[in-house]
Amino acid sequence: MNAEIIAVGSEMLTAGRLDTNSLFITDHLNGLGIEVTAKHVVGDDRARLVTTIRRSLEDADIVVLSGGLGPTEDDLTRDAVAQALGCGMSANAGILEAIETRFRTMKRQMPEINKRQAMVLDGAEILSNDRGTAPGQWRVTGNKVVVMLPGPPSELKSMFTRECLGRLAKIAPPTAIHTEVLRVTGISESQLDQTVAPIYVGRANLETTVLAHDGDLQVRFRAQCKTQADAAALSQEVAELAAVALGDNVYSRDGASLETVVGRHLAAAGQTLVVAESATGGGLAARITTVPGSSAYFAGGFVTYAKRMKTELLGVPESLLAEFGAVSEPTAKAMAEGARRVTGADWAISITGNAGPSTDGDQARVGEFYLGVAGPDKTEVTHRVWPVGDRDRARAFAVQAALDLLNRRLR
Amino acid sequence: MNAEIIAVGSEMLTAGRLDTNSLFITDHLNGLGIEVTAKHVVGDDRARLVTTIRRSLEDADIVVLSGGLGPTEDDLTRDAVAQALGCGMSANAGILEAIETRFRTMKRQMPEINKRQAMVLDGAEILSNDRGTAPGQWRVTGNKVVVMLPGPPSELKSMFTRECLGRLAKIAPPTAIHTEVLRVTGISESQLDQTVAPIYVGRANLETTVLAHDGDLQVRFRAQCKTQADAAALSQEVAELAAVALGDNVYSRDGASLETVVGRHLAAAGQTLVVAESATGGGLAARITTVPGSSAYFAGGFVTYAKRMKTELLGVPESLLAEFGAVSEPTAKAMAEGARRVTGADWAISITGNAGPSTDGDQARVGEFYLGVAGPDKTEVTHRVWPVGDRDRARAFAVQAALDLLNRRLR
Repeated sequence: MNAEIIAVGSEMLTAGRLDTNSLFITDHLNGLGIEVTAKHVVGDDRARLVTTIRRSLEDADIVVLSGGLGPTEDDLTRDAVAQALGCGMSANAGILEAIETRFRTMKRQMPEINKRQAMVLDGAEILSNDRGTAPGQWRVTGNKVVVMLPGPPSELKSMFTRECLGRLAKIAPPTAIHTEVLRVTGISESQLDQTVAPIYVGRANLETTVLAHDGDLQVRFRAQCKTQADAAALSQEVAELAAVALGDNVYSRDGASLETVVGRHLAAAGQTLVVAESATGGGLAARITTVPGSSAYFAGGFVTYAKRMKTELLGVPESLLAEFGAVSEPTAKAMAEGARRVTGADWAISITGNAGPSTDGDQARVGEFYLGVAGPDKTEVTHRVWPVGDRDRARAFAVQAALDLLNRRLR
Repeated sequence: MNAEIIAVGSEMLTAGRLDTNSLFITDHLNGLGIEVTAKHVVGDDRARLVTTIRRSLEDADIVVLSGGLGPTEDDLTRDAVAQALGCGMSANAGILEAIETRFRTMKRQMPEINKRQAMVLDGAEILSNDRGTAPGQWRVTGNKVVVMLPGPPSELKSMFTRECLGRLAKIAPPTAIHTEVLRVTGISESQLDQTVAPIYVGRANLETTVLAHDGDLQVRFRAQCKTQADAAALSQEVAELAAVALGDNVYSRDGASLETVVGRHLAAAGQTLVVAESATGGGLAARITTVPGSSAYFAGGFVTYAKRMKTELLGVPESLLAEFGAVSEPTAKAMAEGARRVTGADWAISITGNAGPSTDGDQARVGEFYLGVAGPDKTEVTHRVWPVGDRDRARAFAVQAALDLLNRRLR
């Protein structure tokens, strides 16, 4: 059984935009044993879109479209699928009411054009959208299926997970899949691959993937076998060997993010955390608070971007800043200890550095950071340099490394 | 004149890989006035690849393939193009010698399979590869062109720049492009489209695109005309009409982000800004500090995630929190005024809300926020509800709206 994915929208054909929805869809289709054999990106051009849909239906059992379900004249997916299949459409009263309610909740009047989003193909099942106004549609045609999903990734992911996985599982071939994930930090992607390659290379029925994102790594071992027990045994055996080889660089084996793992340690110990950030400008606090329920252990923090804020809010002595500079080990130490002292928290992380693009008055190199962790026992400061040449990435690496340092202290 | 791009390789159809080469190619083709009307990704499957090439040649003047030029059995691009065009191939002695030399330089023996890379389609021009072994090919067929490029981005970019740009310029239509961008916030995507559609619909030589990301909108007017003056006049005329219709919802006309525009206002006035964040947990500060040089006007801020931090760091009275709750107009007001008072900054933004996923003790609805802006003259608090059902998106919307409120006060 195979699938093709069509991303719809002229903006997807510009130089700045990539179709990332297809990665999510591919991952889940593969998980059900459905192979993705082609992907297409088509602009808001009805004739081309109709042709592409017809060709994909010739070549694939399942055709998944993303985008083009919005309210404007440009949103052609509904019309194009109806034309490709030669079927009619009609307005659905329930959807119309849901869209009107959504606008009322936001105290806005529904624009007339949003009515287009209530048009449903004859014979289609409606896929509910809990993140936006555009419902999706699931339309069987012969022994094939056309699935229409909205373009915004958050809407697409929620809809696909809630409405499509179950329907797809019913039509997918019987196969058993088990995936084990190790989440890893503190080493490079190539170090990780070099460490685990001897373990996974040449194993039948096993697919290994390494993902890396700003210092946060994961290695996925996906076994596809005839029985669930075989798939679980194979992937677990390989993951266990890899975990031993990677040692304490593995921070989670259940998929949990680093900020989630740190939160679990803090919650279990009944301890609290605060942060004091300079170069990362709130990015560390923002990442910690992506975890629902983080208020149980995260009290808050300081963004001491200006030097005087370091002195006034955290009590970093002016003389210390003058002598060593804002990007220095003594400053990182004083920031972490000051944040802990002022708030009474058990733990404090500090970050000071130069994210670039240029060198400031302190003469800290671009990419140079000091990361402090103050705890009940002691304060440790780590010096790191990320010559990534990209402000956002340097900041992301610093946040990742700071969380890693705290996690190694906590466990 | 239009083009289609085909990325070849089964690895490009896995969940972890995106075809980024097409962004580079698209950028350069657009610059020559050649529109990219579709992109495809196909695995290492000869029949599918031949079909895809034939279909693209039906629909496009230029077909650019990337990948599949390696030495292995899986590398099918040469064979598939020959089959699609019905033409022969033969080994090229010059290429063979170049590959052998390359291996000798690395003190290795050329594997036998690399000879496949010396196969050239009858009638094709060779595109030299200065970064790897696989040469590209440029094959005219009728009034169309098929371009074969290697998959590794560094090889592709060098080859495209050196060997393809000049050839493409010779066949591209004489054309000039000018793009005007309006960046907009404070209204929905559909409101924006309803407002500007009457201005752009039906205009010849004009392509209009609306992009939306967590409340941040942009509308791009791209004019393609015979002369640069015509293209600039057309896109500027339409952008001017749209800017008038959108009024003060337009925050920049030079592509600058909202945080950049806010920073320009502050820097021009010689004023400083601080923030006090609860639900957004540092996300506002992090966004403000993505701007290089933001330290000129951004002093820092407070992440007062726990209630007691609001009291201890910002002086929000406990009695006020008890009476109205943390997510309330009085709390947002006291947070902004407290941050301004404690730091001596000219401006302070506060954000308090419930990003979800559940309702906390304060009984604030999920998605409910209060945004405060305290300035030299007064403090204003705005109440907003985003029923987006997604913690990250609710936070992103709140950050966007808070910046928008400050920007409207500043200008």
